[in-house]
Amino acid sequence: MMNGARLIGIGVGPGDPGLVTLNAIAAIKAADVVAHFAKEGNHSNARAIAACHFQAGVEELPLLYPVTTEIPKTDAAYRTAIRAFYDGAAAEIATLLDGGRVVAVIAEGDPLFYGSYMHLHVRLAPHYPTEIVAGVTGMSDCWSAVASPMAQGDDVFTVLPGTLPEYELERRLSDTDAAVVMKIGRHLAKVRRALERSGRLDRAIYVERGTMTNAAIMPLADKLDTFAPYFAMVLVPGWESRS
Amino acid sequence: MMNGARLIGIGVGPGDPGLVTLNAIAAIKAADVVAHFAKEGNHSNARAIAACHFQAGVEELPLLYPVTTEIPKTDAAYRTAIRAFYDGAAAEIATLLDGGRVVAVIAEGDPLFYGSYMHLHVRLAPHYPTEIVAGVTGMSDCWSAVASPMAQGDDVFTVLPGTLPEYELERRLSDTDAAVVMKIGRHLAKVRRALERSGRLDRAIYVERGTMTNAAIMPLADKLDTFAPYFAMVLVPGWESRS
Repeated sequence: MMNGARLIGIGVGPGDPGLVTLNAIAAIKAADVVAHFAKEGNHSNARAIAACHFQAGVEELPLLYPVTTEIPKTDAAYRTAIRAFYDGAAAEIATLLDGGRVVAVIAEGDPLFYGSYMHLHVRLAPHYPTEIVAGVTGMSDCWSAVASPMAQGDDVFTVLPGTLPEYELERRLSDTDAAVVMKIGRHLAKVRRALERSGRLDRAIYVERGTMTNAAIMPLADKLDTFAPYFAMVLVPGWESRS
Repeated sequence: MMNGARLIGIGVGPGDPGLVTLNAIAAIKAADVVAHFAKEGNHSNARAIAACHFQAGVEELPLLYPVTTEIPKTDAAYRTAIRAFYDGAAAEIATLLDGGRVVAVIAEGDPLFYGSYMHLHVRLAPHYPTEIVAGVTGMSDCWSAVASPMAQGDDVFTVLPGTLPEYELERRLSDTDAAVVMKIGRHLAKVRRALERSGRLDRAIYVERGTMTNAAIMPLADKLDTFAPYFAMVLVPGWESRS
């Protein structure tokens, strides 16, 4: 490995190009190769956020998921396909690093918080110099759009995937001051029932796309349909005393 | 109230001036007045991070806490003093807003996640136009410094204040995939016992100041003294399968 080669995991924030940090911009400009994830046939969200900072002529490495939601994640076929994809992507990047290149992987939100970058990181960080540039998370973007204080003082704050069983969601929502339920998608009706049974439905706020211009924000109690995109979130603000 | 007056709560990130976002810089430059919190006699951390972006001659409004840790938070004297302080600070800002000014309150980390800005927000947001600029949190900074994947897939992630009773810390650490324990300070020995009894001590990482040049990062099991600053954190990474 030549001198200077390194892997940089860069958080480019939740979607608004203005929520990119100065360190992210500097790291993107320092890279020889910029890698980004997207579903085959789709554009990369991280690229759309940060492409204005790419150096002219920088080499790009699109990493295209072979599957996303067509196969259940519990299915062995999904696990096999996705593991082979991450193994292959890490091998491609390793070859670039072995050639002395600086490889930036741009990631929506924060690279070490519920994101695909980590699958590359665990494969490559034991073998190559690695840096992380923290980013603004999607959940911060959502509660900023709502402009609702989220957690304060001695609050316990919990992030729950909407994929959890209904009784687990109910139990955990009953046992925290503040919560974010992520990956709502087809779990919306279940999440709503869990919030109702835990006595939190009246505080819950449904958010799609946070501060983006096409954001959708409403009290969950007012959302009468059961359609929600995968990336929608439900916020349950804490800090009940408000003083 | 004159046209254009508004309150902007701006997250300036965890400490590294490079972790400020483009939106934060633009909002600071658009402000007529920049307010920042500090303890009486100390400098403001948020000001130190962002002062390089202040317009020449911008009006500054230092908001100086009358007390921080000298009086226990459960003490009525603390509550009375701190409430009067926030009431007074909000009244000062209200006067500026009534005069048509754009007032930015800069806040370390993210303004709506465990920060003082919220005390102004709840007093002023019902009466004045308000915007929030999300920021990179201190916890993202800590796990980026460690470069350890934190939460992935269907992980449950929990933020716990070190002030919780030991049995509560133990119970909650046993019942989550990933955790951050904040406000370690004089609670270090208790947090360590709770991690040990919940079987998580071997995964726990102690972090002071994240990516700052004077950072301290070590396995908690290797930290043999019981001294920790108030802002130190303990990380318990999730995602055990690592694949």
